[in-house]
Amino acid sequence: MQKQPTIGILGGMGPQAGLDLFQAVLDNTVAARDQEHIPTLVSSAAHIPDRTTFLLGGVASDTAARGREGAPPDPAPPMGRALVELAEAGATVAAIACNTAHAGPIFQRVQAYVRAHAPKLALLHMIEETVASIRQGVGPHADPPGPAAKIGLLATAGTYHFRLYDDALEAAGFDPLLPDADFRDTHLFPAIYDPGYGIKATSSPVTERAARAVAACIEHLIEKGAEKVILGCTELPLAVAGHHRLHPYVINPTRVVARALIRATYPERLNPN
Amino acid sequence: MQKQPTIGILGGMGPQAGLDLFQAVLDNTVAARDQEHIPTLVSSAAHIPDRTTFLLGGVASDTAARGREGAPPDPAPPMGRALVELAEAGATVAAIACNTAHAGPIFQRVQAYVRAHAPKLALLHMIEETVASIRQGVGPHADPPGPAAKIGLLATAGTYHFRLYDDALEAAGFDPLLPDADFRDTHLFPAIYDPGYGIKATSSPVTERAARAVAACIEHLIEKGAEKVILGCTELPLAVAGHHRLHPYVINPTRVVARALIRATYPERLNPN
Repeated sequence: MQKQPTIGILGGMGPQAGLDLFQAVLDNTVAARDQEHIPTLVSSAAHIPDRTTFLLGGVASDTAARGREGAPPDPAPPMGRALVELAEAGATVAAIACNTAHAGPIFQRVQAYVRAHAPKLALLHMIEETVASIRQGVGPHADPPGPAAKIGLLATAGTYHFRLYDDALEAAGFDPLLPDADFRDTHLFPAIYDPGYGIKATSSPVTERAARAVAACIEHLIEKGAEKVILGCTELPLAVAGHHRLHPYVINPTRVVARALIRATYPERLNPN
Repeated sequence: MQKQPTIGILGGMGPQAGLDLFQAVLDNTVAARDQEHIPTLVSSAAHIPDRTTFLLGGVASDTAARGREGAPPDPAPPMGRALVELAEAGATVAAIACNTAHAGPIFQRVQAYVRAHAPKLALLHMIEETVASIRQGVGPHADPPGPAAKIGLLATAGTYHFRLYDDALEAAGFDPLLPDADFRDTHLFPAIYDPGYGIKATSSPVTERAARAVAACIEHLIEKGAEKVILGCTELPLAVAGHHRLHPYVINPTRVVARALIRATYPERLNPN
């Protein structure tokens, strides 16, 4: 039996980011009736261990999540299993709502597991989709940046450490631009991780303090010459929601991959915006 | 192997209502880290035929969705199959994010299918959960209404026609109170369905006109003596969001069933609010 095209979203990393990708799929679909929306399965697999902790070998913030022997638990096996379950439930194309999970040491093993156990599931790569979309020009402010354009990058320590976007941007001819170290430590990482006001702890709505910290990081990168700024952690777009003055500058990988999911299932329903 | 408690949400009716139930689960969970959230599977089964059209035998608006013989297509079989798929993917307790789908001619057949094919999946009943929560007292303004208390009900024509909440409220000893017919026709139904300003057409944000119409309906029911007012259509809570002055009076079934899902999986993580 021919399977009907169905979107799969692997969420839970964090849960709000998975929901946000689901919302982005709805927002970018042209549908006048319920039945014109695209069948979508979301697995909010909150039990998946922290990706940054695993990548940095246990030196990062999330010490409580370490395994008994002190080695941090490995997120790749439960991610692979959750994607195969999505395929078994009907998903034909899937994306992972977490930037850090696309680091080679995690993503390549997840991809190998999916190829072995659910070979018909197309697994998108959020980072590659995002860089490709910058080359093509994204969104309503769509002039593509020139060659060697500076592209700012806000992300987690794990994403920086593994040069997730850096390498992909350089391969595409862009010049990746990171915030200065003090901006990362005093603004960016706490805005994501602080147990009191960080977006992972309080996202609905994001605290004023986290929103201000993220805006300061974007402005800092624009001052350093960035033409666009990638919000390279799924928590960050939550802090730049609504009719935000910084929208013309930001690239939201969640939105980019949502549109790629629609294009891969029912391209005729993609909102041209 | 003992299955880990996992929430299942059958959405897609419409898709935004399923997403809102997922959001309500996140909002009512106490969690400081990703891993403290509850594993959740969402099936946004957008292909499920219109429930009201089926219940009213094809006399309702959705003629395009009718089957070849002119009889409206039956939503129960795809709902049952989607719930069994959620169970196979790991869900241990599930809820359906649609009030109208709980009408007996649909829900009883969905329930029978689930009992036959996924007997371990606990399927909650949004209407019963809502009436039970009123008996116990809901939310921060939690005095339970007295016996024979008047409980207002805002809903769609389909939900009124099948007395979904009316019968459950009467069985619990309450006196269900509906808006006068002219209020339904000039305020309530247009606030939901009007193609220009209705919530189904424009929900992000809801139009000022729809929000005023819903508020007028709630005030009308309070003037008629209602102690609480059930927002018995998943669109209505969107019009009473934020810090709304009518919050002490309203009962939101989406929030009630989200809390019931948490109580059925990880009760220690239920936000006491």
